[in-house]
Amino acid sequence: MKPLSPTDQLFLWLEKRQQPMHVGGLQLFSFPEGAPDDYVAQLAEELRQKFEVTPPFNQRLSYKLGQPMWVEDEHLDLEHHFRFEALPTPGRIRELLAFVSAEHSHLMDRERPMWEVHLIEGLKDRQFAIYTKVHHSLVDGVSAMRMATRMLSDNPEDTGLPPIWDLPRKTRPDRDDPASSLWHSITHLLGMSGKQLGTIPTVAKELLKTINQARKDPAYDSIFHAPRSVLNQKITGSRRFAAQSYCLTRIKAVCEAYGTTINDVVTAMCASALRTYLMNQDALPEKPLIAFVPVSLHRDDSTEGNQVGVILANLHTDETNAGERLLKIHHGMQEAKDRYRHMSPEEIINYTALTLAPAAFHLLTGMAPKWQTFNVVISNVPGPSKPLYWNGAKLEGMYPVSIAMDRLALNMTLTSYNGQVEFGLIGCRRTLPSLQRMLDYLEDGLVELEAAAGL
Amino acid sequence: MKPLSPTDQLFLWLEKRQQPMHVGGLQLFSFPEGAPDDYVAQLAEELRQKFEVTPPFNQRLSYKLGQPMWVEDEHLDLEHHFRFEALPTPGRIRELLAFVSAEHSHLMDRERPMWEVHLIEGLKDRQFAIYTKVHHSLVDGVSAMRMATRMLSDNPEDTGLPPIWDLPRKTRPDRDDPASSLWHSITHLLGMSGKQLGTIPTVAKELLKTINQARKDPAYDSIFHAPRSVLNQKITGSRRFAAQSYCLTRIKAVCEAYGTTINDVVTAMCASALRTYLMNQDALPEKPLIAFVPVSLHRDDSTEGNQVGVILANLHTDETNAGERLLKIHHGMQEAKDRYRHMSPEEIINYTALTLAPAAFHLLTGMAPKWQTFNVVISNVPGPSKPLYWNGAKLEGMYPVSIAMDRLALNMTLTSYNGQVEFGLIGCRRTLPSLQRMLDYLEDGLVELEAAAGL
Repeated sequence: MKPLSPTDQLFLWLEKRQQPMHVGGLQLFSFPEGAPDDYVAQLAEELRQKFEVTPPFNQRLSYKLGQPMWVEDEHLDLEHHFRFEALPTPGRIRELLAFVSAEHSHLMDRERPMWEVHLIEGLKDRQFAIYTKVHHSLVDGVSAMRMATRMLSDNPEDTGLPPIWDLPRKTRPDRDDPASSLWHSITHLLGMSGKQLGTIPTVAKELLKTINQARKDPAYDSIFHAPRSVLNQKITGSRRFAAQSYCLTRIKAVCEAYGTTINDVVTAMCASALRTYLMNQDALPEKPLIAFVPVSLHRDDSTEGNQVGVILANLHTDETNAGERLLKIHHGMQEAKDRYRHMSPEEIINYTALTLAPAAFHLLTGMAPKWQTFNVVISNVPGPSKPLYWNGAKLEGMYPVSIAMDRLALNMTLTSYNGQVEFGLIGCRRTLPSLQRMLDYLEDGLVELEAAAGL
Repeated sequence: MKPLSPTDQLFLWLEKRQQPMHVGGLQLFSFPEGAPDDYVAQLAEELRQKFEVTPPFNQRLSYKLGQPMWVEDEHLDLEHHFRFEALPTPGRIRELLAFVSAEHSHLMDRERPMWEVHLIEGLKDRQFAIYTKVHHSLVDGVSAMRMATRMLSDNPEDTGLPPIWDLPRKTRPDRDDPASSLWHSITHLLGMSGKQLGTIPTVAKELLKTINQARKDPAYDSIFHAPRSVLNQKITGSRRFAAQSYCLTRIKAVCEAYGTTINDVVTAMCASALRTYLMNQDALPEKPLIAFVPVSLHRDDSTEGNQVGVILANLHTDETNAGERLLKIHHGMQEAKDRYRHMSPEEIINYTALTLAPAAFHLLTGMAPKWQTFNVVISNVPGPSKPLYWNGAKLEGMYPVSIAMDRLALNMTLTSYNGQVEFGLIGCRRTLPSLQRMLDYLEDGLVELEAAAGL
C-alpha cells in the first residue's frame, strides 16, 4: 500500500467525463520473416499464457481515510487489460488511427489497475500494432514510452522478450522523468509536498494568489500574451488521433541550411501546419500562436539527470514566409534557453510551474481563461535511434498519444526513431474538425522549408 | 428543442462512471447468397454514403436554464456514431462477445446524439454482426429492439432497407413502450409529471416517504423479503456480455409436459443457472432469490396497448428438484397474475412503482439497501417469430444487451426469434466473475427439466 504523490492526485482530479487523463503510445511492427499468417493470434495466446503482471501494472486505486493509495489488485483480470483486436478491411493506417481515436476516447475503469494493451491484427502488408494506454496517475507519458521501448531489443534474434506488464524492474524509478516534473513543479511551487493534497478550491485559490503576484512582476509579465483561438475552447469526450513518420534526413538538411536545431525545424513544421489548418477555417488569430514546449537543459557542470524547463515559443504564425518563420522561431528559442542558463535549478522549477499555473488553474476550476498563456502543447521526446525488434518483429514506427484538455484542445507530441521523426497528434474531434489534415500540412510545411532553402 | 421527460432525466441522473445507462442489441447476420468476400466493407461504405440521420438519432442533449433539452446536432459526425470494426482471429462468437463486453462498458459522449452502431466483420462462416448502443434517455431498450427489427424485412429480395438511424418515422411514438413505463410509473407515483424534476435528494426523500408508508401496509409487506447476495453488491465499470440461442421447440415440450407457460420455463432455466453459478462460488443464499419480472397483462375487455405489471418472482433456488422448482415458480407467477387481475390499471401502476421504489432509492442515493426487494432482473420481451432479412442478409440471432446497476449486478434479458429463445446476459465482470459460464448452466437447466419430464 503506497499513497499517491500530490502530482498523481492532480491527474485524478483533472479527469472528467470529457477529459480522460490517460496517455498512450502506438507501436507499428512488421511480421518476422517467415512468420505464419496467424502470427498475431499465436502471439496473443502466448502473451495471455506466459507472463505475470508486475508492478506498477498490478496496482489499483483504493482510498484509506480519504487518501488515495495504490494497492495490489488481488483479482487481476488480464482479459480486461490485454485485448486482442482487429482492424476492419482494408486495414490501412487510416483504420488503425480510427481505432486508436475511439479507444483513446474511453475513460478507464478506476476499480482496476489503469492500463490497457491492445494487440491489433488485420493491418495490410504483414504488419501489426500495439496500442498501449496508461493512466497518467500510474505512469507518465515519457515513462510509458520508455517502458514500451525497454521491452524491445536491437537484436532481431532475441526471443522471449516480455510485454510491458512484465518488464524487469529498474533500479531508478521511472517517476523521476521530466514530463512528470512539469506537474510536479506546480505542487512543489505551492508547497504541496505533503502526502495529502487539499481540495480543488484550496489548490485553485493558492494558484490564483501565485499567478496574481507574478503578474505584478515585470519579469513574468511576458507569459500572459497568447491570443484566443479555437484551440482554446472547451472540449468534448471524443478524440481524433493522427500520426505519421517524417524523414529525419530531410529535417536535418533543413537544419543545416538554416543553422537551426532539429527541434526548431519540427516546431516550425507545427507552426506551419497550425497556420494552414486555422487559415482554412478562417480562424487564424492576428497575433501569433504561442506553444508550450518542454525542453531539456543539459548543463555541463551538473551530474544530475535531465533538467527540464518550459519555453513559451512564439510560433510566428503571422509570418507568411516559411524560412523567416523558422529563423524567428529559432531566435526565440535561443533567447529563452539563454534566459534559463542564468537561472538556478530552483528558479527554473518555479518559472516552469508559473508558466503552467494559469492553465492548471483554469483546468481545475473549469473557468474560461482570463490569461491565455499558450495555445498548444508541442512536446518532443527523444527516442531510440537504431532499429528495434520485439521477438523478431521489427518496430516500424512509434507514435505518442497524449492528452487533450479543456482550453488545450490539441497536443502535438513527437519522438524520433531510426531515422524518422514520429508525430502523434491528439485532439478533440468536435472542437478541431478534420484534424487528420494536419499530417499533410506538416509535410507541406517541410516542403516549403526545403523549397525556401533551395533543397 | 424538446424538454426531456422526468423519466428520461432519471437515466441521466442514475448514470455514473461505473454505471453507464445505455442499452444495446446484438444482431447476427449471414452473408446473402453469392455475396463477395468484401461484402461487409462494401456495406459499410454504402451505409456511410447513402443515408440521412433522422430523429431521434440527430438529437443531442443541451441545457436551457438548467433544464435538459433535446436539440438537433448541427455538426453531426457520422464517423463517430457509425463504426466499421472487425473481430480478431479466429472470429468465433467468443470474440464477438468479448467485443460487445468491452464496447458496452464505455460511457457515451454526452455532447453528441447518444447512439452508436458498430458493424462488425471478421466472423467465421460468412457471418457479420451489428451491435447497437443507445442511451436509455434517448430510446428505451424495448423500443431500440423494435427499431432494430423495423429495419428488417421478411422478404430476402427486399433491397435498399435503411439502417436504424434513417428509419421512416412511425405515427405512434416509441415512447409508449412497456419497459419505459416501469420507470415512468415511479415519476407518476411521486406526482412528478411536471417537466422539471427536483433534485436527487428531493426525489429520494419522496421515495423514502412512500416506501415507509408502504411498509406499514400488510398488503405490500411481502415485497421486502429478498435475501442478500453477491448479485447485490456495488458494481465496477467493466461488463461481461454473454449471449446464446436456445431451441424454442425444446422449451415448448417442457411447457407441455408440466402444463406451464414458456415464460415459466425460461424463468426456471434462469433460476437453475443462478443456483448453479452461486453454488459454485459457495454463495447461494439459504433463502430463495427473488427476480424482478415485468409481465404484460392483456385484458380481453381493453382496447388499449400493453398493460405491464411487475412480478416479484420467487425463483425457489433453495429447491433441489428441477421439476418441483418449475412448478413452484409457475404457481407463484399464477398467483401474482391473479392478484393483478383484481387491480385497476391505476393500482397496477402504483404497485409496480412501489416495487421498483426501494431499488430506485438505493440507486439514487448510492446507499446499501435496507430492504432487498429483489436480486436480479429477468425480462422477456416478445420478438418476431419468422425469419427476417436485411437487404438479403438473413438475421440468424438477436440478443438484448441491457444495464447492470449498483446492487443489481446482473440483468438477464431474453427475446424470441424464429424458433429460438435469445438470451442476453449483462453483468459487472468483477462482481460476477466468469459470468459466461451461465450460458452452459442455462442449457443444463433445460436438460434437467427435460430429463425430469422424461423427454
